[in-house]
Amino acid sequence: MDLDSFFNAQSIAIIGVSRDSNKVGHVIFRNFVDGGYQGKIFAVNPNAESILNYRSYASVSDIQENVNLAIVAVPAEAVPKVLEECGRKKIQNVIIDSAGFKEVGNYKLEKKLEDTIKRYKLRVIGPNALGVYDAYSKIDSLFLPRFRMSRPKEGVISFVCQSGAIGSSVVDLATAEGYGFAKFISYGNAVDVDESDLIEYLGNDEKTKVICLYIEAVKDGRRFLEVCKKVSKKKPIIAIKGGVTEAGAKATLSHTGSLAGSAEIYFGAFKQAGIIHAENLEDMFDFAKILEKCIPPKGGNVQIITNGGGYGILAVDAMVKNGMALSDLSKETKKELRKQLPPIINIENPLDLVGDATSARYKLCIDACMKDRNVDVLLIIVLVQTPLIATDIVDVLVEANDSKKKPIIVVSAGGEYTEVMRKNLEQNGIPTYTYPEDAVRSVQQLVKYYKNNL
Amino acid sequence: MDLDSFFNAQSIAIIGVSRDSNKVGHVIFRNFVDGGYQGKIFAVNPNAESILNYRSYASVSDIQENVNLAIVAVPAEAVPKVLEECGRKKIQNVIIDSAGFKEVGNYKLEKKLEDTIKRYKLRVIGPNALGVYDAYSKIDSLFLPRFRMSRPKEGVISFVCQSGAIGSSVVDLATAEGYGFAKFISYGNAVDVDESDLIEYLGNDEKTKVICLYIEAVKDGRRFLEVCKKVSKKKPIIAIKGGVTEAGAKATLSHTGSLAGSAEIYFGAFKQAGIIHAENLEDMFDFAKILEKCIPPKGGNVQIITNGGGYGILAVDAMVKNGMALSDLSKETKKELRKQLPPIINIENPLDLVGDATSARYKLCIDACMKDRNVDVLLIIVLVQTPLIATDIVDVLVEANDSKKKPIIVVSAGGEYTEVMRKNLEQNGIPTYTYPEDAVRSVQQLVKYYKNNL
Repeated sequence: MDLDSFFNAQSIAIIGVSRDSNKVGHVIFRNFVDGGYQGKIFAVNPNAESILNYRSYASVSDIQENVNLAIVAVPAEAVPKVLEECGRKKIQNVIIDSAGFKEVGNYKLEKKLEDTIKRYKLRVIGPNALGVYDAYSKIDSLFLPRFRMSRPKEGVISFVCQSGAIGSSVVDLATAEGYGFAKFISYGNAVDVDESDLIEYLGNDEKTKVICLYIEAVKDGRRFLEVCKKVSKKKPIIAIKGGVTEAGAKATLSHTGSLAGSAEIYFGAFKQAGIIHAENLEDMFDFAKILEKCIPPKGGNVQIITNGGGYGILAVDAMVKNGMALSDLSKETKKELRKQLPPIINIENPLDLVGDATSARYKLCIDACMKDRNVDVLLIIVLVQTPLIATDIVDVLVEANDSKKKPIIVVSAGGEYTEVMRKNLEQNGIPTYTYPEDAVRSVQQLVKYYKNNL
Repeated sequence: MDLDSFFNAQSIAIIGVSRDSNKVGHVIFRNFVDGGYQGKIFAVNPNAESILNYRSYASVSDIQENVNLAIVAVPAEAVPKVLEECGRKKIQNVIIDSAGFKEVGNYKLEKKLEDTIKRYKLRVIGPNALGVYDAYSKIDSLFLPRFRMSRPKEGVISFVCQSGAIGSSVVDLATAEGYGFAKFISYGNAVDVDESDLIEYLGNDEKTKVICLYIEAVKDGRRFLEVCKKVSKKKPIIAIKGGVTEAGAKATLSHTGSLAGSAEIYFGAFKQAGIIHAENLEDMFDFAKILEKCIPPKGGNVQIITNGGGYGILAVDAMVKNGMALSDLSKETKKELRKQLPPIINIENPLDLVGDATSARYKLCIDACMKDRNVDVLLIIVLVQTPLIATDIVDVLVEANDSKKKPIIVVSAGGEYTEVMRKNLEQNGIPTYTYPEDAVRSVQQLVKYYKNNL
């Protein structure tokens, strides 16, 4: 695969490594020096002898060894010459971080790149791009210092993002929230490698289980549709489209120099291609979390179990508003539970275990639902402000989830005590949400995706 | 005001203080012993001589001094007798935490309370209630241990919540997120004091600037409408209604024993009464934050300033989708900014200051917008992953906000570095949001509220 070196190169040249630690090239070089990358690195800067104790080369031509990937951070005007040198040195994969091309009206300069790319059959990400972060190989062309933007841990979500600012801020945020990533790619002006190339590559990437996508425009609509159709059958693609209104579309033009096109056409295409459409970034990661963690449900009947009546009501309201199916427990289950639960508990949906619910009461009901063929998904609300829920609720939930019979989703809102429990659950493969509405909409996407692709 | 002692009593009896530190009465007594309450407290438990080194009284009748408030945490059957004793002792305000009344079908027992209340002209919150937390006086009848549910700092939001579980979990969450509260009241079955009484009281409460409300049903629709109409002119009321669907409404019956009634009637009443309707808990606190912190805008024209193009686009999309007005900078402002900003910057809305924006560039544009009569509200997106934004952006934003000319709202997404900046801004009175869509919908409510009430 000709994109492979972007993520797995064993030998990398960083071109334009300043000695100034605030400059783009220097930040990138540092990512490799102390970020955990295991391959070989070469600094290129004609005006320095050494940088961070590494020899500095005047040009890639001076490097004797093979180089699989170049990362370019020189001023825009100097990029064509540098790219030419990469071609001659047979470095087939190049990431261009430098800005100052199409996005500022400099079409001519961008055209020069195109010609060089064709001549040497290069694969180029950028220009005007943050480039690539691979959580496994630690390839990292992001020129944002790690104290400002933390790098995510290894995971199974890959995020393709046309906008660098959205990409970096959201990855930073998601990392703080505990999400793991496989690959993050901000591809900027897409002079060569575009969203379709990347989605196709990620479709075949074993590390990637869920693909997230922020786009303002696609380069080749037909190809995008074809690629997504194929990939979305293998793994979920969740996309958000920037510039869905006229005023928003106008703004995309000066952002990435791309015409946003009619929102309706995009939404239609998303549907046709099996893409899950997220209305906003929050939804995108909510959906990614459930699709990353949950096993496929056999159907759409959801049973709600709660120890907070109000939360159960809000969850039911959200389910009905979204046209989802509330499961109706079988007669046998109801009879069985009636025998064992206190008489004040109504055996309904939501199943409100009331304020004095213990972990044992949860276990009883979860086990019953696991056996009941009328239930496909368990949405479990656990509020731990009340003293009767002990920490063994985590064991109850994880054990049920590990049985891999039905997907389990947990809703829990609160402060530090709640957060500790949630982190624990998430590390054990259970997606958790603060608000019932977010959980419900995520369950809807889970059910829908597997209904279409099983 | 006859509800005053619920929040300001100087002498309080806690009735049913167990020696077992896990029991409800004990937890409540502890809230007063080590929670910062400055008045007098009395423990009532006929089976103990002393608790936590306080003398234990057999009954409130044995207390020689005046008592302004009683908090009751004895088993349901014992409540009528205890309430009778409170009446005889002339304790006019009583909070009943105990459950086991109407909500479990025990109408008869609840009727007994009603009779006693009438006979002694008592004011009672509960039963089946968490009761009251006052962040200033530290009156705290919440039987949830503080290591499980943290208590909020002093602030100006008051939250009236029919559901104890929603109330406690959301206050716990909001506290972790830095919100301050004046009063939190979970009023349970509302045998006497109901939502209308509390809203009326909070309308006159100087500490309260914004009232948040979760209801499943109101006891007296006409009175609710009248009270809210009056109060909402003085301060915003934000309400969320549980049980808006048929299935949800059915669940409210077994939750607080109340008939939820048609959602449409509620939404109509909300509108008539000037209540801001929040669709979910997240919106409620997003709206509360902007209404708590921002000065009234003179109109609805919003100018977006950003250093992330994609975020600007998402904000514009959200504005247009919500039918809001994008400001159009005056010719003079445009001319002035054109002279001083780099040529690649488009002076539009969103005003995209691009990736190399500095704090000085933000200041230039904010100052220009403050002078421009076409701008009523500033929505400022600041992404700090990029190294060129220094910490002095906080000074720029706070200085502009302190001028009290126009409301400023900040959007910023990221990890730890971002969170530090946001906390700093919020402490200085600027509301901040993670996602542009949430900020935009909050701005909409701000504009709407003051359009109707200025």
